[in-house]
Amino acid sequence: MPELRKDPIIGRWVIIATERAKRPTDFAAEPKEPTPTFCPFCEGNEDKTPPEIIAYRAHGTAPNRPGWRLRVVPNKFPALQIEGNLDKRGVGVYDRMNGIGAHEVIIETPQHAVSLTALSVEQIQDVLWAYRDRLADLKRDVRFTYGMVFKNVGRTAGASLDHTHSQLIVLPTVPRTVADEMRGGKVFLDYRGRCIFCDIVSQELEDGDRVVLDSDSFLAYEPYAARFPFETWIVPKRHMSHFEDISHLDAAALARCLKATLAKIENALSMPAYNYIIHTSPFDVGSIEHYHWHIEIIPRLTKVAGFEWGTGFYINSVPPETAAEFLRTTEV
Amino acid sequence: MPELRKDPIIGRWVIIATERAKRPTDFAAEPKEPTPTFCPFCEGNEDKTPPEIIAYRAHGTAPNRPGWRLRVVPNKFPALQIEGNLDKRGVGVYDRMNGIGAHEVIIETPQHAVSLTALSVEQIQDVLWAYRDRLADLKRDVRFTYGMVFKNVGRTAGASLDHTHSQLIVLPTVPRTVADEMRGGKVFLDYRGRCIFCDIVSQELEDGDRVVLDSDSFLAYEPYAARFPFETWIVPKRHMSHFEDISHLDAAALARCLKATLAKIENALSMPAYNYIIHTSPFDVGSIEHYHWHIEIIPRLTKVAGFEWGTGFYINSVPPETAAEFLRTTEV
Repeated sequence: MPELRKDPIIGRWVIIATERAKRPTDFAAEPKEPTPTFCPFCEGNEDKTPPEIIAYRAHGTAPNRPGWRLRVVPNKFPALQIEGNLDKRGVGVYDRMNGIGAHEVIIETPQHAVSLTALSVEQIQDVLWAYRDRLADLKRDVRFTYGMVFKNVGRTAGASLDHTHSQLIVLPTVPRTVADEMRGGKVFLDYRGRCIFCDIVSQELEDGDRVVLDSDSFLAYEPYAARFPFETWIVPKRHMSHFEDISHLDAAALARCLKATLAKIENALSMPAYNYIIHTSPFDVGSIEHYHWHIEIIPRLTKVAGFEWGTGFYINSVPPETAAEFLRTTEV
Repeated sequence: MPELRKDPIIGRWVIIATERAKRPTDFAAEPKEPTPTFCPFCEGNEDKTPPEIIAYRAHGTAPNRPGWRLRVVPNKFPALQIEGNLDKRGVGVYDRMNGIGAHEVIIETPQHAVSLTALSVEQIQDVLWAYRDRLADLKRDVRFTYGMVFKNVGRTAGASLDHTHSQLIVLPTVPRTVADEMRGGKVFLDYRGRCIFCDIVSQELEDGDRVVLDSDSFLAYEPYAARFPFETWIVPKRHMSHFEDISHLDAAALARCLKATLAKIENALSMPAYNYIIHTSPFDVGSIEHYHWHIEIIPRLTKVAGFEWGTGFYINSVPPETAAEFLRTTEV
């Protein structure tokens, strides 16, 4: 059983994932990463993944058989386990709980595409809708507090398979970065009476020099204090605290914005490895004024991260205004 | 002039280092990293670095000439500039200040050694003493609030030169991770009346299963909620808030502990890339009860970091108890 442990000084939770444990000696050799010749995510190989949780598939086709447009399956090497009850305990100065949660994989297409941008806007809309469906479903489980959707593209970004896919981790606790953003949003709301994300959207639209793409309902921009070169955020222009409350119409608009933004990043930077993460509000709060869901896209271009890990202090060698101009003018 | 920008949501400061700016097109190609054939840090090449700030050198030898054991020079591509006055300003919802600070390089030996562990205990003691000397000197500058000593070893960890060296960045603000640790330490002190780091040292010595090396005055151990496989901390066993208050005797003890701990990591993991960072108290507070300086060592073994960057949520596949046992039994 994996274990959640809390750092007693800083209050950060960590998953000690014993189920996917490596032996210490695994690190002694350079990691071998042969290109896999077989793809378990391709159509026809449905029996090579755990059975599907949901799928969008042609009417009349059977589960775990061809005929699907999109499948959601449990992660074969989950960081957390879905079965069991929460068990929180203290160990002297330390706190732990057992690693209850969900870890799912969204297989975005039956074809062996390696980029989300190779998919049509309709297919990307399906992907976003699958995020919504899974969040809405898992939200009903009272053991869980937070659902985090993310995507790793390329080995450098932590992907182990090329076939385009996303992941969903559902946790019994709110991740630290989101908790910190919520705290900052609350302070701003108490002081100014407005949502800080909404204020940022207004200012970015007015300034214009960090805007990457201003589309119908979504703004793609480089954050003022970007940690990484070409870090890009996509934010709904109207206030909305929970991703899973997205409408069909907005999902279509987001699919267009996400596809165009990722295509710009891929074209400008020669298909870099990247991660994106959806930051949304916790399951156990209703619509709130002080938090505003958004997508953070982080191209993995630089290696200078150990220092940053240890300090929370980032050095970015590309001003966000420069990056935005470059992306704005990149054709897709 | 580099610029410090504050994230308005989370309050995190970022350095936008325009002086070392890359053009966006620099990222489009795979970064070339030829092995440099010339080393500016070796004895005889003193004119290839900016003039030394301090050096430990043989009596009668001239500055910026051979005869030194250790040199401290300004970073040739500084993230911050030493000249100028602090200028803090708001830009709508955003905050910025100009990038005043210091960025120095500690060249640890005149010989072309690539690991700190190749140096004698006396040489490592010199290195630690140079950290102390520089922190004590820069502390007198009222513009500065925090001094951060760190080391990058290997390309994966962000090093651009192999010759063993450390860096010092002095900032007008306290880095976020340290501020968070101080806040946690304060809460614990207010509630329990003790230093949380001192409590951790007691518990680790009693438990024993996360101890890597228990030496005279310092404890090397794997933290209970380690973020990374083989993350290792070195903590003084007696309470001390500021690194620069270290005694000669403790510097010698720390040199022995650091050399042995790094040698264990290098032997166990085949010379991995790693970072270490000294977390110490800010310049502008006197001795405090709730913060306790320490060194965090982070071997760079895994690539799954983008997700972690975006969430502050870490998944560690090696339980710290397993890592500690492996390091404890590794011969040096």
